[in-house]
Amino acid sequence: MNAPPLGPVRLTPDAVTTLHPATLARIEGGFWAERRRVNAKVSVAGGPERLEAAGNLANFRAAAAPSTPGDGAPGFSGDFQFQDSDVYKWLEAACWQLADSPDPGLADEVEAVVTLVASAQREDGYLQTYFQLGDAEPWTELGWGHELYCAGHLMQAAVAHHRATGSHRLLDVARRFADHIDSVFGPGKERDGVCGHPEVETALVELYRTTGEPRHLNLAAHFVDRRGHGTLAAGADRGHDRDPGPAYWQDHLPVREADEVTGHAVRQLYLLAGAADLAAETGDPGLRAALERLWRDMVTTKTYLTGGVGSRHDWESFGDAHELPADRAYTETCAAIASVHFSWRMALLTGEARYSDLIERTLFNGFLAGVGIDGLTWLYVNPLHLRARPHERPGDQTAHRTPWFRCACCPPNAMRLLASLPHYVTSTDANGLQLHQYATGTYGGGDLTVAVSTDYPWQGAVTVTVQEAPETGRTLSLRLPSWCTEHTLTVDGTPATTRAENGWLRVTRVFAPGDTVRLTLAMPPRLTTPPPRVDAVRGCAAVERGPLVYCLEQTDQPDGLDPDDVALDPSAPLAHEDRPDLLGGIVTVTAYGDPLPAPADGWPYAPHGTRPPRPDRPVELTAIPYYAWANREPGAMRVWIPVADRD
Amino acid sequence: MNAPPLGPVRLTPDAVTTLHPATLARIEGGFWAERRRVNAKVSVAGGPERLEAAGNLANFRAAAAPSTPGDGAPGFSGDFQFQDSDVYKWLEAACWQLADSPDPGLADEVEAVVTLVASAQREDGYLQTYFQLGDAEPWTELGWGHELYCAGHLMQAAVAHHRATGSHRLLDVARRFADHIDSVFGPGKERDGVCGHPEVETALVELYRTTGEPRHLNLAAHFVDRRGHGTLAAGADRGHDRDPGPAYWQDHLPVREADEVTGHAVRQLYLLAGAADLAAETGDPGLRAALERLWRDMVTTKTYLTGGVGSRHDWESFGDAHELPADRAYTETCAAIASVHFSWRMALLTGEARYSDLIERTLFNGFLAGVGIDGLTWLYVNPLHLRARPHERPGDQTAHRTPWFRCACCPPNAMRLLASLPHYVTSTDANGLQLHQYATGTYGGGDLTVAVSTDYPWQGAVTVTVQEAPETGRTLSLRLPSWCTEHTLTVDGTPATTRAENGWLRVTRVFAPGDTVRLTLAMPPRLTTPPPRVDAVRGCAAVERGPLVYCLEQTDQPDGLDPDDVALDPSAPLAHEDRPDLLGGIVTVTAYGDPLPAPADGWPYAPHGTRPPRPDRPVELTAIPYYAWANREPGAMRVWIPVADRD
Repeated sequence: MNAPPLGPVRLTPDAVTTLHPATLARIEGGFWAERRRVNAKVSVAGGPERLEAAGNLANFRAAAAPSTPGDGAPGFSGDFQFQDSDVYKWLEAACWQLADSPDPGLADEVEAVVTLVASAQREDGYLQTYFQLGDAEPWTELGWGHELYCAGHLMQAAVAHHRATGSHRLLDVARRFADHIDSVFGPGKERDGVCGHPEVETALVELYRTTGEPRHLNLAAHFVDRRGHGTLAAGADRGHDRDPGPAYWQDHLPVREADEVTGHAVRQLYLLAGAADLAAETGDPGLRAALERLWRDMVTTKTYLTGGVGSRHDWESFGDAHELPADRAYTETCAAIASVHFSWRMALLTGEARYSDLIERTLFNGFLAGVGIDGLTWLYVNPLHLRARPHERPGDQTAHRTPWFRCACCPPNAMRLLASLPHYVTSTDANGLQLHQYATGTYGGGDLTVAVSTDYPWQGAVTVTVQEAPETGRTLSLRLPSWCTEHTLTVDGTPATTRAENGWLRVTRVFAPGDTVRLTLAMPPRLTTPPPRVDAVRGCAAVERGPLVYCLEQTDQPDGLDPDDVALDPSAPLAHEDRPDLLGGIVTVTAYGDPLPAPADGWPYAPHGTRPPRPDRPVELTAIPYYAWANREPGAMRVWIPVADRD
Repeated sequence: MNAPPLGPVRLTPDAVTTLHPATLARIEGGFWAERRRVNAKVSVAGGPERLEAAGNLANFRAAAAPSTPGDGAPGFSGDFQFQDSDVYKWLEAACWQLADSPDPGLADEVEAVVTLVASAQREDGYLQTYFQLGDAEPWTELGWGHELYCAGHLMQAAVAHHRATGSHRLLDVARRFADHIDSVFGPGKERDGVCGHPEVETALVELYRTTGEPRHLNLAAHFVDRRGHGTLAAGADRGHDRDPGPAYWQDHLPVREADEVTGHAVRQLYLLAGAADLAAETGDPGLRAALERLWRDMVTTKTYLTGGVGSRHDWESFGDAHELPADRAYTETCAAIASVHFSWRMALLTGEARYSDLIERTLFNGFLAGVGIDGLTWLYVNPLHLRARPHERPGDQTAHRTPWFRCACCPPNAMRLLASLPHYVTSTDANGLQLHQYATGTYGGGDLTVAVSTDYPWQGAVTVTVQEAPETGRTLSLRLPSWCTEHTLTVDGTPATTRAENGWLRVTRVFAPGDTVRLTLAMPPRLTTPPPRVDAVRGCAAVERGPLVYCLEQTDQPDGLDPDDVALDPSAPLAHEDRPDLLGGIVTVTAYGDPLPAPADGWPYAPHGTRPPRPDRPVELTAIPYYAWANREPGAMRVWIPVADRD
């Protein structure tokens, strides 16, 4: 039980955090178990075929093959310098999967890919097939080259491989590359810049946690502090004539000095996750203060109801404060994943429940919408509004589920998060165990082990049964989600009057095996209003139930009513219904609304106070969980529904 | 008095329209006279210096110079294939200016540029310096080459030059080019495509009106009907790897079959203006029906309150129906100009007042905002909302006034519209005169001449004094703006009970010189509500007065209050004030609003029904006409103001 956790963020004993990841974390039933089953059996299992078809594996084979220039050796496949990272993210996903459930077939596939990756590494430790197969020199295109980014994903895969299998094969590859990087980068060395895409920072800290090599931690610290000094902004790389500006690659300000999240959302959040890893291992108070400030800026002014972040298609970036358009929400699946990474590290660092509140919201909504229910198709962008027949924007990322992408960052990223998901559920400290998320399974840390049973998020009852406990007092902490306004808590059947402290319900006693703590969260469907400064959805309400954000999809409405043609009656009662037959089993919510009259035939702006005539009868609207949208025939979709303007 | 009009759209006697342009049209005082004075004395006068600095004139000199390949001859200056068109649009503006007010200095400059342009023309009539100075063959890059687009602007400049001066010098250049085009394009000829940017269609009809050459009309008809058959969409030009899709260049559907405006807004509207010219000269009922349908689609679902069109920065395009974001409104100045061109032709074609209603709105708001009050600086895009410190979108068109643009289509386009503006004020038919717009001046057509005196748009009184009239009955028609809900009309001091018919107040009598018709339009400040399907500004109101849309600019608010931090109290009275000292002399409107509380420190979404606490005291807000924004220090701006949610 006290073996180190078989997941990410394995803190060192020196880490300066309030909480530690649980050492035992197994999801064994319920909502996430089913999503993880599909992930394992369909998504991860199909990875090698996708990577073969897209040429990613061929790149490694080509880089491994001895070749002479001009001998017609195969060139690089794919459109992006970072194709290798898709392979590494799949490897990481597969390894977390193996750490969870043995699978000899998958293990063989992993070893074959590890062998392939290792065979492509240069003698000096360098490894990036784009540069090895192309005509550019390594480390000459730091802006777009993504070499350190790929190295980071290699390190994360290697750590997962080592933790899952005990093998050093991939870890040795990652170490050799890390040592090569350490020989090249730093003050007075050959290169004194940073990578255009943060990622190596969090990876180097995790590598340090496995290797114990202080140079790996120091290199992470170097990259965090070197960034923000305009080393990238100064010049564009070969072949890239569009300058995205310094914020794009997080080179506008050092993290410690920043007071708002900005630029490319994934770059920003990978960097903050890495900085949080660093703060966890070093206890650096200045860094921690900056991270708290930036997280707050993100949540209070730049986060969608779904937990999604990144308001702009332009350069995949955070927008201005309160700039949260529903139709043009970029909210990349990878940005939701990065937000979970960042928030989880902050949760461990601070012990505060609000970070896991955001993780819950992001997992169930902004993240999961990116994953097709079939496990085969994906969304890159996750808007909160889609019109019925939108005019194309050529060159745009569209909101259609796709088996793979030209830039395929999201699918294997989602795979690795689902595969490692049990490790975001529980944490431990010297006094006991904290349940951050609710998922049926077994969790333990220190000397306390519990079994959790729940039908969350469909029902709000969570039963925690103690399996192992010491004979001294321990505290079991259950997060009270911030969306919940009414709950009951019983301990062995006796109502407890425990009040939540900063989002935690804490039960302290000498536990014995068989003790039960039962938390019941009331989950009536509810209407939610946006902050008053958000222009895009003013005058609208969203349907939510429990941790789930709902949406109207056209196909569920009477006579195929376009959700853009209706206003919600906020006074009509909401109802919910179990629909095991629909979309893998969901709970729908029904509401009532007024159909809008047809658009005016003339000038459509009118004197203030003009209201559409009230229709003869309202229509019944059916909402489904947002995560399940775009899994059926195409049509319009809305999360935010205009509220009818009635007397 | 019966000389043909010295402006654009000089219909032939065969034209099948309800109305004809007035033959006498002079703006002699008031609002537009001052804007036109600045246009003449600053903008048009400064044109040659701008065109010299930007290299446009150098291109003609280089193309005119005899050179041998490889002799180091100067190459093409500027980033776009259509640089020549800036020169042609300036020439057109200068010529309309000369038609209005003799100016020997300007006339000399015009002749010098005409000589330069003529000297650059090839023996065979071809003229486009980009291709003459570059290494691409003419007519091989129809998508992006803009050769027919530039030819169109040359023709329009030549027609203006001929009408203003009587000279054939530039007209001969244009004719030779038109004849060359006619020899190259058409069924069975060397090229059977169309230009990526419509413009030559409207220009060829206008050339035909001057030359009487049926081939020019037929070529216009050919280009209108040939478009929409995917000749451009099939392949991309050299060096252009981004495919904008067929709608971008209006090659997705023939005009006659289209039922919505789409794609690049300026391309769409130049094409429709050309098709309207064609319908006017040919009486083609199918074309007219399509134009009426498309205009209606534009106005009812895709037009901003300012009259601006083009919702998307992406490919400068119309968006979906009701997709009218305030902050991301592209609403290019050129698109507003193109909308005026299209609507004016429809007004003549149909005689309907609604077209001139839109022209009024567009001129005073969406168009004029593009022109700096100083006549020296311009806006390319005209959003209805600007945040206080927006994060940059590298590569984006920004809402900052700029002396000139890398793509300088808008400034000389605005110059030519202002220079020709008198010709959009009045029309004539067999029965009399129609006043479409209200501007102090003298207007005449047929045998009726009137003087108009007004302080419009600041005051609603318009006095029309008859100067010449026949001894038989005539009808004077005054457009009753659709924004006006209360008016009085007197004829020689006697109240008339005339009721508006389809937007026209018609006074029929035997007029005598000295007769006065006085229209008084009530102009209280008013609040306007958007159509219910426009997501972007739901729950907001806009301040308007007369034909002017107002906005809140940060600099006018108490203590520099950010307009994003306030909600309007719709029950508080609006007041207006003359401010001759401000922004060249304006009328401001004051309103009251509630300051919003600071953003929440935590999760900002709240249960429906949550309202910001009502503040202790409201703040007084000062609105200025939208056209005058961005002429002082930078700051936030809003047209649409959230309406306070009060009990």
